[in-house]
Amino acid sequence: AQQYRITLLPGDGIGPEIMAVSVDVLKVVGQQLNLEFDFQSALIGGAAIDATGEPLPQETLETCRNSDAVLLAAIGGYKWDTLPRHLRPETGLLGLRSGLELFANLRPAKILPQLVDASSLKREVVEGIDIMVVRELTGGVYFGQPKGIFATESGEKRGVNTMAYTESEIDRIAKVGFETAQKRGKKLCSVDKANVLDVSQLWRDRVTQLSAEYSDVELSHMYVDNAAMQLVRWPKQFDTILTSNLFGDILSDAAAMLTGSIGMLPSASLGASGPGVYEPVHGSAPDIAGQDKANPIAQVLSAAMMLRYGLNQPEAGDRIEQAVMQVLDQGYRTGDIMSEGNTLVGCRAMGDALIQAL
Amino acid sequence: AQQYRITLLPGDGIGPEIMAVSVDVLKVVGQQLNLEFDFQSALIGGAAIDATGEPLPQETLETCRNSDAVLLAAIGGYKWDTLPRHLRPETGLLGLRSGLELFANLRPAKILPQLVDASSLKREVVEGIDIMVVRELTGGVYFGQPKGIFATESGEKRGVNTMAYTESEIDRIAKVGFETAQKRGKKLCSVDKANVLDVSQLWRDRVTQLSAEYSDVELSHMYVDNAAMQLVRWPKQFDTILTSNLFGDILSDAAAMLTGSIGMLPSASLGASGPGVYEPVHGSAPDIAGQDKANPIAQVLSAAMMLRYGLNQPEAGDRIEQAVMQVLDQGYRTGDIMSEGNTLVGCRAMGDALIQAL
Ligand SMILES: CC(C)[C@H](C(=O)O)[C@@H](O)C(=O)O
Ligand SMILES: CC(C)[C@H](C(=O)O)[C@@H](O)C(=O)O
Repeated sequence: AQQYRITLLPGDGIGPEIMAVSVDVLKVVGQQLNLEFDFQSALIGGAAIDATGEPLPQETLETCRNSDAVLLAAIGGYKWDTLPRHLRPETGLLGLRSGLELFANLRPAKILPQLVDASSLKREVVEGIDIMVVRELTGGVYFGQPKGIFATESGEKRGVNTMAYTESEIDRIAKVGFETAQKRGKKLCSVDKANVLDVSQLWRDRVTQLSAEYSDVELSHMYVDNAAMQLVRWPKQFDTILTSNLFGDILSDAAAMLTGSIGMLPSASLGASGPGVYEPVHGSAPDIAGQDKANPIAQVLSAAMMLRYGLNQPEAGDRIEQAVMQVLDQGYRTGDIMSEGNTLVGCRAMGDALIQAL
Repeated sequence: AQQYRITLLPGDGIGPEIMAVSVDVLKVVGQQLNLEFDFQSALIGGAAIDATGEPLPQETLETCRNSDAVLLAAIGGYKWDTLPRHLRPETGLLGLRSGLELFANLRPAKILPQLVDASSLKREVVEGIDIMVVRELTGGVYFGQPKGIFATESGEKRGVNTMAYTESEIDRIAKVGFETAQKRGKKLCSVDKANVLDVSQLWRDRVTQLSAEYSDVELSHMYVDNAAMQLVRWPKQFDTILTSNLFGDILSDAAAMLTGSIGMLPSASLGASGPGVYEPVHGSAPDIAGQDKANPIAQVLSAAMMLRYGLNQPEAGDRIEQAVMQVLDQGYRTGDIMSEGNTLVGCRAMGDALIQAL
C-alpha cells in the first residue's frame, strides 16, 4: 500500500468534531484504494496555548514539516481573544503559514446545485458560481516590517503595519494565479488598489509583465472596492481571482458567503515544495462547539483537496466529493444548511451518511 | 436672502451632466426658500490635468477653502490611468481630502422601497436596509509614510505602503462614529483586523475606551473579513459601521451595491471645521459619459446632504429628497435602475421631472 504521513491539527471549537469525521472518511477511502495513512495529531491555536503556553509549539511545526500533508480544522475562540498578540491562536496560524512557506492560498467558492436557495442572493445571480480566489498568504500587511505600536514625538501612540511586496513575492503568486486560471476558465482577474497604493502599482506592473508568458489566459485588473461590488452585483463574471493577502482575506470570505453555505467550502495553502495545509474556509464556531451540530463537509472536502493536490490521488478525492454530493441528494443537512423537506442531522450522523455513501 | 458660496467640482466622465442637473435643482429650491447660491466652478481630476497639468490646482483648493460647501461629481477615466501617480485624477481627490482635512466620510447605504427589486439579493434580505458607514478618510494606508517603490539589498523592487493610525486620529473619527450612531439606531459596529494588525489593535483599544462616554450606544467589534461576509449574509444586522480608510473603501462599496442602485447614493466628507465635500458614491462612468444616460439622483441627493449637514438648511434638503421619492413613485427611471412597467428617461429628463416635482 502507498503510505502517507498526515499531520492532523484539530485546533479549537468545532475543530475536533469535524476532524474526527474527516479521519473516518479518509480511513474508508484508504481501505478502498489501498492507501495507508499514518495520522499524527499535533497542537495548534488555543488548544496549544492551554497545553503548552504557545499557539504554535516548535514540535507541531516539526511534525508538519516531516509529513506529506497537513489537515487543519480551525483555531481561535473568545477565551484567547484578550491575550497578548504573540500568545493568540491566530498568531499560531500565521506562524504555520510562514513556517511552511505556504505562499499560495486557494479558496474556491463554488455553489452546489442542491444548496442554491441557501444563498442570500437571487437564484439567477448565484446559480453556477464557480470562483477560485488565489490569495497570497505569507506577505503583504500581514507580515510586513516595521510593525507594532510606537510612541510618536508628541508622546501619543501610533499603530503601524507595513503593506509590502517584493517583485519575487508577486511573481511566484502570480504564476500560481495564471496556472490556476489555465486549468479553469482561462480568465484571471488581478485585484489591487493601484490607483492609491504604490505596493499595488508594483503588483499590477509585475502581473501585467508576466501575462506575456500566459497568452492563453485573459488577464484583467480590478480595484478592490470595485471587486467587492462586482462580487455582489454579478459574481458569475469571475473565474479566477488573484490578489494579495489582506484583499484575499476579505474577498474570499465575501465570495464564500455568496454561496450561502461556508460550511461546505475547503481551501488549500501551498508552498513551493513541502507539505501543504488543507482546511475549511469557515472558523472554529465556538458557540456550537461540542454540541454535535457542526457541518463537517468543508473539512471532509478539505481532505479531498489534500488527496487531489497534496498526495496526487485524484481518484480518492473524487470518491469523497461524490459521497458529499450523494448525501446532499439524499437530503441530509446539518443545521447551517437545513431547509424544508430535508433531514436535519448532526455532525456525527453526517459523517455516518458519508461513510455509508462511500 | 441667506447667501452661500458653493464650489462646484464637476470633474470627469458623467460629472458635468449630473452636476448641471443638481445646480438646476438647487436653484429652484433656493428660490422657494429664499436661499442664494453663489456657484463657483473649479477644476479637479482629469479635467484639471488636461487644462493645467495637475489633478488638483492650488487655485481649486483655495476656491474650496473659501466656500461654505463643496459639491463634487466624480473623477477619473481610462485616459489618465497610465499617468505617473502624482498626475492621476485620484491623486487630486486624495489631495482635496487631506487639503481640507476631511477626516470623516459618511456613506449611507439605504434601500429605497421603489427599488428593492434592483438588488441582486433576495427581497427579504435587503428590504429596509439602512446602514451608515463612517469611514476615516485622511489616514491609514492611503497616506501613511514611508511609501513608494524601493530597491532591496538584493536589487529587486519592493513596493511599500504604511498602514498607520495615531490615537488622536482614531479618537476623532470614533467620536463621529458614536455621534452618528446616537442620531440613528444607537448601534455601532467597529470593523478592524485586530487579530492580525497592530494598527487595528490600537484602533480597537481606543474605540473601546471611548465607548464609556457613549453609554447609550451599543458597541460591537467585527473583523473585516467577517464584516464582508455579514454584509452579504444579513445586512440588516448593521446600523452604523465605523472603520478605517481602506476597510471603509471596500465595505462601503459592498454595502452600496447591496441596494442594487449605486446611482442613488450620496456621501459627505467632513472635517473638524471648514467646508465639507458632498459627492455621489458612484464613479465617473466614462463609458456612458456625454450620452445623457447618467442617473443624476445620487448627485442631487448629495446636494440635499450638503443643504442638511453643510448649510444647516434641513427643509431644503427635505424638499429635494421628497422630490426624488415623487419622481420614483411616478415611475421615472434612468437606465441603471430601469425595470418593466416604468418610464425610461435620460439624465436631463430626470432633472426636468425633479424640477417639476419641486
Ligand atoms: C484567523 C485569521 C488570522 C485568518 C486570516 O486573516 O488570514 C483567517 O481570517 C483566514 O482567512 O484564514
Ligand atoms: C478614487 C479612489 C481614490 C477613491 C478611494 O479609494 O477613496 C474611491 O474609491 C472612493 O471610495 O472615493
